[in-house]
Amino acid sequence: MVENVLAIPKGFKAAACSSGIKKSGKLDLALICADKPVECAGVFTTNKVVAAPVKITESRVRQGLCQAILVNSGNANACTGGPGLQDARRCGDLVAECLDIAPQLVAVNSTGVIGVPLPMACFEEHVPSLCNMLSHDQFDGVAKAMMTTDAFPKVSSRSISLGGQEVRILGLAKGAGMIHPDMATMLAFVITDALLEDGLLERSLRQAVNASFNRITVDRDTSTNDTVLLLASGEAENSEIVDGSSELEQFNSALNEIMLELAKMIVRDGEGATKLVRIQVNGAVDDDDAIVVARNIATSPLVKTAFFGEDANWGRIIAAAGYSGAEVNPDQVDILFDDVTMVSKGLGLDSEQEAKATEVLKQPEFTVTIDLSLGEGSAYYYTSALSYDYVKINADYRT
Amino acid sequence: MVENVLAIPKGFKAAACSSGIKKSGKLDLALICADKPVECAGVFTTNKVVAAPVKITESRVRQGLCQAILVNSGNANACTGGPGLQDARRCGDLVAECLDIAPQLVAVNSTGVIGVPLPMACFEEHVPSLCNMLSHDQFDGVAKAMMTTDAFPKVSSRSISLGGQEVRILGLAKGAGMIHPDMATMLAFVITDALLEDGLLERSLRQAVNASFNRITVDRDTSTNDTVLLLASGEAENSEIVDGSSELEQFNSALNEIMLELAKMIVRDGEGATKLVRIQVNGAVDDDDAIVVARNIATSPLVKTAFFGEDANWGRIIAAAGYSGAEVNPDQVDILFDDVTMVSKGLGLDSEQEAKATEVLKQPEFTVTIDLSLGEGSAYYYTSALSYDYVKINADYRT
Repeated sequence: MVENVLAIPKGFKAAACSSGIKKSGKLDLALICADKPVECAGVFTTNKVVAAPVKITESRVRQGLCQAILVNSGNANACTGGPGLQDARRCGDLVAECLDIAPQLVAVNSTGVIGVPLPMACFEEHVPSLCNMLSHDQFDGVAKAMMTTDAFPKVSSRSISLGGQEVRILGLAKGAGMIHPDMATMLAFVITDALLEDGLLERSLRQAVNASFNRITVDRDTSTNDTVLLLASGEAENSEIVDGSSELEQFNSALNEIMLELAKMIVRDGEGATKLVRIQVNGAVDDDDAIVVARNIATSPLVKTAFFGEDANWGRIIAAAGYSGAEVNPDQVDILFDDVTMVSKGLGLDSEQEAKATEVLKQPEFTVTIDLSLGEGSAYYYTSALSYDYVKINADYRT
Repeated sequence: MVENVLAIPKGFKAAACSSGIKKSGKLDLALICADKPVECAGVFTTNKVVAAPVKITESRVRQGLCQAILVNSGNANACTGGPGLQDARRCGDLVAECLDIAPQLVAVNSTGVIGVPLPMACFEEHVPSLCNMLSHDQFDGVAKAMMTTDAFPKVSSRSISLGGQEVRILGLAKGAGMIHPDMATMLAFVITDALLEDGLLERSLRQAVNASFNRITVDRDTSTNDTVLLLASGEAENSEIVDGSSELEQFNSALNEIMLELAKMIVRDGEGATKLVRIQVNGAVDDDDAIVVARNIATSPLVKTAFFGEDANWGRIIAAAGYSGAEVNPDQVDILFDDVTMVSKGLGLDSEQEAKATEVLKQPEFTVTIDLSLGEGSAYYYTSALSYDYVKINADYRT
């Protein structure tokens, strides 16, 4: 599914550099730039503590047009008060000056430590050179410059044919810590050269976020900086995608694939994550109940440590379903690890089945299916194992 | 506060033994017995997956009279279906037969692994001898026989003078894993020889549980077996405690102290817990909002790993407050570690303050105060650090 060569949408360039925000000297500042102002949509953190750049970017993106995305790692510019807002604005102004565009067209994004003032000298010095480095082959660098505790950069792209015309979608994300709906990603930027009817972009983004970044969890914490942006240049020269068309279906389907792929990469790269586990809930009274059950299982520390221990501890799974608040009749619950039935009608099966289930848990990726046998509701969630390394990474983060 | 010599309420006896349920040969079966049927009240798990003994005990306790409490560790008799219910009933019948009392007067309780049939031979063989071993000095043994992953037995007692008459209250608890409201304890049994007016016992129990077991968290999981029982023999020969009296206040205050002490022992002994941290929220718009904020901070894996790392990472604390759903204005938040102010009006203070805060975090017990500066609402929660050992204990529990 993943292409080796990235499909780079027409009308976009990018650049990344090491500006000194990260003491390690790794890439920490990047710019994505469209050749002209393009349509955009965004989804932002629901945390009431909103980082300065998110406040500014949210109000700008709401205008519907964007030309440049600036992103830094190493510092979240969150809980930095009035000065933090000024700093975020200044970052955008630097980009606007260098590119000679309106500051309103610049989306600023930060990720990293909370509560520390942004080191503005790094931006003053490096944003101008960044603007001069823009090219078509620097998107990998952007993904790297977004990383904080991420172990690997997260990139996914698709090239699809719409009415005989090639359309490209490219997604970049960073995740790792503080990953939980809504929203899970911390930062994701998706660009496309598709041409869409007015207003469709926002809807396409929301449905894709709901089926991807809002269906993953590493820990239960929602970040102050979570942002997903979708920009469409319209440079693919496809006939405009209109509401209700099969082209829109194709476009959304590719967008969903990219976002789910990025979301799964985020879980796989969750801090100290050793497993990627799909929690599939079927037979709930409705989809909302299914989501509640899936989320409760996916976020249970006891379930997640059992995954780490490769222990088919279904008691913890059924207990997590039981306290979710959803309609659950324990005597009707079936639980499967991949295709191995471990629990039937609320009762655990024999040690032979458990041995088979344990084999499933030894895999790096598997699915736990919980069938509540009550109705037609279903939902999924992706989660990770809770490991020693999760504790280590998060205990030592600032030291 | 804790007395070295336990205050044993009049009219109760106890016994404990090793019945073979635990392979280790440690104490695993115990009985508390009143000389005659006594008044009782109970609070039970809100998990929809309810263990067999809880189902039986809840309906019996609701009648208002109880004479014997049987408890075993090593097996929870949860998710065991119809046979599990039969087993739980049989356990009660064994006690009833030996003591020659009605089965309805026996409360049965189990804690341990979920989904495994109760080894009935252990009960058949050892309940009769347990009934013959009852004495006034075996309550420590009961606390030990209740332990699963607990590192130490949990006992607390008070002797108070009501109208010149000595009244005793004794509480026994076990906790460790799956500790979260409602209810936090897994199992707690409190006995007293106080004489109370009809109906007061239930109210006294509920307010005490709300201020203690429902204010602690180790992980976020609610057990299938959580039970708190309160039995009152009335043998102290005090004049009956009536509603609205200062004697009731005194009694409730002692009961609260005992329960909070047991609750804090449970957190201190949380699986892999290295710290006992009080999360004190002040200045919320109301108490309900304060509870929500306190709970979100107390259950945040990122906050709990920072405590383990002795890192005054206030960004995670303010972020957890922000996503709690409660009214929060980040620009008005103050955060203190004990009496060291770390955050004022949403902004972190200097590195000198941080050094002082880090000293606070090095202690085994401390308080984090979050003042939202919005109103008069306040609440507290006790939580633990999330450590390597938490992961180790829970990954390996069944192996």
